[in-house]
Amino acid sequence: MLLLTASYQAAAQARAPLTARQDKVSLQFALAPDGRPSYAVFYGPKPVILPSRLGLAFADGKGFDGPLVLLGSEVTEVDDTWQPVWGEVRSIRNHYQQLTVHLRQPAATGRRLDLVFRVFADGVGFRYEVPAQPSLAYFTVQDEHTEFNLPANHKAFWIPGDYDSNEYTYSTTRLSEVNSAGIEAIQLKSAPRRVQTPLMLRSDDGLYVNLHEAALVNYPALMLNVDPKTFGLSSQLVPDASGTGAKAYLQAPEHTPWRTIVVADNAPAVLASKLILNLNEPPKLTDTGWIQPQKFVGVWWEMHVNKASWNYADTTNLKLADTNWNALKSNGHHGANTANVKRYIDFAAAHGLQSVLVEGWNVGWEDWANNWKEEVFDFVTPYPDFAVAELQQYAQGKGVQLMMHHETSSSVTNYERRQPAAYRFMQEHHYAAVKTGYVGRIIPRGEHHDGQWMVNHYVRTARLTADHRLMVDMHESVRPTGLHRTYPNWLANEAARGNEFNAWSSGNPPEHETILPFTRLMGGPMDYTPGIFQIKLDDWNPARNKGRQVHTTLAKQLALYVTMYSPLQMAADLPEAYEQHLDAFRFIEDVAVDWDDTRILAAEPGDYITTVRKAKGKDEWYLGAITDENARAQSVKLDFLTPGRQYEATIYADGKGASWDQNPMAYQIRRQQVDHKTVLKLLLAPGGGAAVSFKPAGK
Amino acid sequence: MLLLTASYQAAAQARAPLTARQDKVSLQFALAPDGRPSYAVFYGPKPVILPSRLGLAFADGKGFDGPLVLLGSEVTEVDDTWQPVWGEVRSIRNHYQQLTVHLRQPAATGRRLDLVFRVFADGVGFRYEVPAQPSLAYFTVQDEHTEFNLPANHKAFWIPGDYDSNEYTYSTTRLSEVNSAGIEAIQLKSAPRRVQTPLMLRSDDGLYVNLHEAALVNYPALMLNVDPKTFGLSSQLVPDASGTGAKAYLQAPEHTPWRTIVVADNAPAVLASKLILNLNEPPKLTDTGWIQPQKFVGVWWEMHVNKASWNYADTTNLKLADTNWNALKSNGHHGANTANVKRYIDFAAAHGLQSVLVEGWNVGWEDWANNWKEEVFDFVTPYPDFAVAELQQYAQGKGVQLMMHHETSSSVTNYERRQPAAYRFMQEHHYAAVKTGYVGRIIPRGEHHDGQWMVNHYVRTARLTADHRLMVDMHESVRPTGLHRTYPNWLANEAARGNEFNAWSSGNPPEHETILPFTRLMGGPMDYTPGIFQIKLDDWNPARNKGRQVHTTLAKQLALYVTMYSPLQMAADLPEAYEQHLDAFRFIEDVAVDWDDTRILAAEPGDYITTVRKAKGKDEWYLGAITDENARAQSVKLDFLTPGRQYEATIYADGKGASWDQNPMAYQIRRQQVDHKTVLKLLLAPGGGAAVSFKPAGK
Repeated sequence: MLLLTASYQAAAQARAPLTARQDKVSLQFALAPDGRPSYAVFYGPKPVILPSRLGLAFADGKGFDGPLVLLGSEVTEVDDTWQPVWGEVRSIRNHYQQLTVHLRQPAATGRRLDLVFRVFADGVGFRYEVPAQPSLAYFTVQDEHTEFNLPANHKAFWIPGDYDSNEYTYSTTRLSEVNSAGIEAIQLKSAPRRVQTPLMLRSDDGLYVNLHEAALVNYPALMLNVDPKTFGLSSQLVPDASGTGAKAYLQAPEHTPWRTIVVADNAPAVLASKLILNLNEPPKLTDTGWIQPQKFVGVWWEMHVNKASWNYADTTNLKLADTNWNALKSNGHHGANTANVKRYIDFAAAHGLQSVLVEGWNVGWEDWANNWKEEVFDFVTPYPDFAVAELQQYAQGKGVQLMMHHETSSSVTNYERRQPAAYRFMQEHHYAAVKTGYVGRIIPRGEHHDGQWMVNHYVRTARLTADHRLMVDMHESVRPTGLHRTYPNWLANEAARGNEFNAWSSGNPPEHETILPFTRLMGGPMDYTPGIFQIKLDDWNPARNKGRQVHTTLAKQLALYVTMYSPLQMAADLPEAYEQHLDAFRFIEDVAVDWDDTRILAAEPGDYITTVRKAKGKDEWYLGAITDENARAQSVKLDFLTPGRQYEATIYADGKGASWDQNPMAYQIRRQQVDHKTVLKLLLAPGGGAAVSFKPAGK
Repeated sequence: MLLLTASYQAAAQARAPLTARQDKVSLQFALAPDGRPSYAVFYGPKPVILPSRLGLAFADGKGFDGPLVLLGSEVTEVDDTWQPVWGEVRSIRNHYQQLTVHLRQPAATGRRLDLVFRVFADGVGFRYEVPAQPSLAYFTVQDEHTEFNLPANHKAFWIPGDYDSNEYTYSTTRLSEVNSAGIEAIQLKSAPRRVQTPLMLRSDDGLYVNLHEAALVNYPALMLNVDPKTFGLSSQLVPDASGTGAKAYLQAPEHTPWRTIVVADNAPAVLASKLILNLNEPPKLTDTGWIQPQKFVGVWWEMHVNKASWNYADTTNLKLADTNWNALKSNGHHGANTANVKRYIDFAAAHGLQSVLVEGWNVGWEDWANNWKEEVFDFVTPYPDFAVAELQQYAQGKGVQLMMHHETSSSVTNYERRQPAAYRFMQEHHYAAVKTGYVGRIIPRGEHHDGQWMVNHYVRTARLTADHRLMVDMHESVRPTGLHRTYPNWLANEAARGNEFNAWSSGNPPEHETILPFTRLMGGPMDYTPGIFQIKLDDWNPARNKGRQVHTTLAKQLALYVTMYSPLQMAADLPEAYEQHLDAFRFIEDVAVDWDDTRILAAEPGDYITTVRKAKGKDEWYLGAITDENARAQSVKLDFLTPGRQYEATIYADGKGASWDQNPMAYQIRRQQVDHKTVLKLLLAPGGGAAVSFKPAGK
């Protein structure tokens, strides 16, 4: 391997090697002997990416997948800092060396392409840029030939390359063993060796490598095909519905998203990386005061645990336009009824939570899923037992906001037709945020959740909601790529396997939440919906939930509010579940959702994560520690605390004998005076965790 | 053949034949020996359709394409009359015998299907109805197995089965010779033996048969595959974009469009048939006073003859959102400029035409076509030289309306997102009608102009415009199927090869307009844009129009206002062309666009048509006579005139020595006193025609 690398370096040298570096990370660009562009990445002397091909094939056959000629190059350096509207830290340093390579097709009149590499201390981002040029205006990307040739058979944390869903548990295998043939498809069967990004890798020689993309706009999502023999990864863009294999319809000047390679010699550094955010554009909004990170409860989990229903009636085969919704007979257990919603509003008000999400408030749920039906929801007609105006007034009177819900059932053409009216409806009724959903197969039929058309829809929706001063949280969307920097009203996404799977499937294994921050969350916040206190679900509906449970302890559910970063955190369980454990609920009341600082104290993907964060504008810190199925003892040095100051730590820990499967709800809460020299011992049960709040003592 | 028919009748008899009839037309239904449903149609003793299969295949494999069991049947009769909001006649008789056949899949729990046949004196309509039933809610039609087995090798007037365009010249061949292999595709290459409906057929024994469909809603258009050996036609539905071959996504209760077979022993009776209108639903609107049949001029033909441009600038590769449209440099020949539009308004006002269409008024034309680009037009931003408010006031002051133009470039998702704002814009600026266009490949990509998704778009647009009290005229849409009865604000469609082809292609042969009423117009009015006076187009722009011309005489252009029925008739040529021939233009000023009565005096598809119509509410008649490339003498009995009354006939005829190719602009106008006993002699030049107005004498 080293030999290969050395010879490449020599070859590259011979052909004018173009390089950039930042601390230990370096990048080399070269035209290969066949005239094709390639790049390699090193971490110190260690190869991260072996020489790997770059290229874009066009539908007209005249793309940049053949030999190219070097026209020139520049290296520039940037070092600045910026403040996110909200985030894990108050201030972010953006420090990179940029290599721009100008290329041309061989003929003097050939089309031109720029390759732009940004090398940070924690990795590399690069993209293809098609500059404005006389002979190239409109083009269709047929394939992208970006490759990531890995030097060894790394350990990989992966999910199948489903074009329509990322709601999988992670497989942890060597690259040579990546194979999703036996994994049940959520939406669309993946090619066996196709995986999604973010892809987390760990080398035997101690490198942690994360592959993803930044600023996915007007382009399909990137997936990766794994060669089990060479450990080479090649790009697989999600195709469109034309049946031609086309991937993206573009107009010069245009560029691809950034392809990102985060690399470090320790796992916490990967979680701390701001590379993807740095590669995104600054906010397009100037007035952002209306954007509020927040916690919320919702009429939601009670449907998942079969205590209530989204649908109002049990009648099916209804047609949206032809149904007299007021004449339908209620099934008697519709969750989004006025009285029940008031109960949630009361709870939110009593416990200082900002919002109440209500799902199932609008007509259409009787026939919503699995019919590939276009006219399912209208987003403005409430069920007869949901009193829009009355609830709005009630909530306002209690200082609580209602959060809108727009399940589209992936009938996106229908949603787009109705978005203007739906957002006007929200404004008229003082809703400030909307949770959207994209369950099922996309309409326009043949398009995929992760294709260019849908990517444009998500971004358009972020813009459109911003135009209406609305925050948005998207479920079943493409996984994020840092666009929340540019669209800070786009608070969160689901776009992974959330806590809900614990309610109605084999669930999420205890390791799941230790992998998500290394994979899905690399791109942005997740609305994971933590905070389930009633771990065993039989109690809610014994007949329908037999044997179902959340695969963590209660204490770990608290820790997730810290280890899973999001400016939008649900307290997902039912008020009556919380009321049984108000001492533990106190942590959810207290924990912040916007931060001045974040420290990853310990982390290993698939095993454990310990994170501590400082609440924005306050001298309060919140710590979360989680483990996989194995019990662990963690010693936490509190050297992040202000020296010389006393703090009261409230420690929410697994109880004696706790374990996710046998005794998940055993927890203990203890208080302790600490300072910056204290070493806190935390014992995490199997599938367990711990949450700690630190507040200045005597306050 | 008679033997075959007889034996079928015997077999049908043996299995309980189910029949319906009206005058000479009779229908027989039977379950074939294999349990499959079939039907046959007779005109007197003559077979029109031999026993032919019926069936619907579903994507779930459990459709109605296998054996079925007869549950029962009913025959009912309806005889009523109704008044269209506008039309060729004041009152329409709807007289039919209906046979409803109830069928079931063999198992006792099998799904149920009804077949409904309506037998009129001029043909048959039938459709599949899937009734509401417990075990069938959502279903996907994979294929329709309706067949039309013709008894002989008829002469057929056909265009290729392009899923995205009907803008073809007609081929006239025997069924055995149908083959579009050598015909250049307008959009999508047709299978060689696939043709579109309306399909006009003529048998050697004197029957005229027209196959089409009525009330195409929520279903793809029907095309027909021709078996050159058996003369059997089988259904080909236009597929969707899913790549699965699916044709229609439906929900019970639902039905297909009516499959229509118009049959007569003379050609005029086909043109006079109201069968398709009768099979459509009554208007959904009650207040229709705002719907106004009308004539209009437009800034349009000058672009076709390369005298002006739709685009304001000659710069290309613009992006809608990023372009500063006010800073663009005009190319100096933008048609839709304020001064030029005023000229058209003046002309319309001077000659009593209601409206002025303006194409190219809105930004985006620099990059509008052939890029499969989604964001081309926004439908609300005028070019800097088009003063919306000023022109609106100017037009209003002259009693003229401006007609909006929305070219979508087939980016229908983009149009649907912007329709609400675009129609609000129209209302704010007092536009009363919109001409829409669908040039190019459809977005959602993979969908077709004639597929279910687009069919729903056109109907939704008819509804949406009606909601805004707007009339609509759709170009490049699916061909109509009588839906203007249900949506009378949907005044017209193009959906065929219009007059415009004469400006920039090999054009339309002289027979073209003698075929269109037997084909395309069977479904509804066409915005053919007649009235071109400057037949030779070199004069407008010698460099770019060399040798181009309209393939008729000037007099024939006048006759088209009568022979091609539409409530929306353009005077398509330039004001300066009309001003050279104001004596001939008088006919366009006079001719009505809404009628009390219509008589087809003579007609033969491909050869000639003579039609006379009575203006609505007036004792004025207008006659149009056209011929193909052959000169003809027509003797017209004026027995339609009120007996005992004198009329002044103004006869606009081809001049001496006129012919479409050598001397197209020679015309003569003569006045003559006539009464109901007069026989008028009309001489039609090759490619020529005659137009006559009859007004009570002395008025």
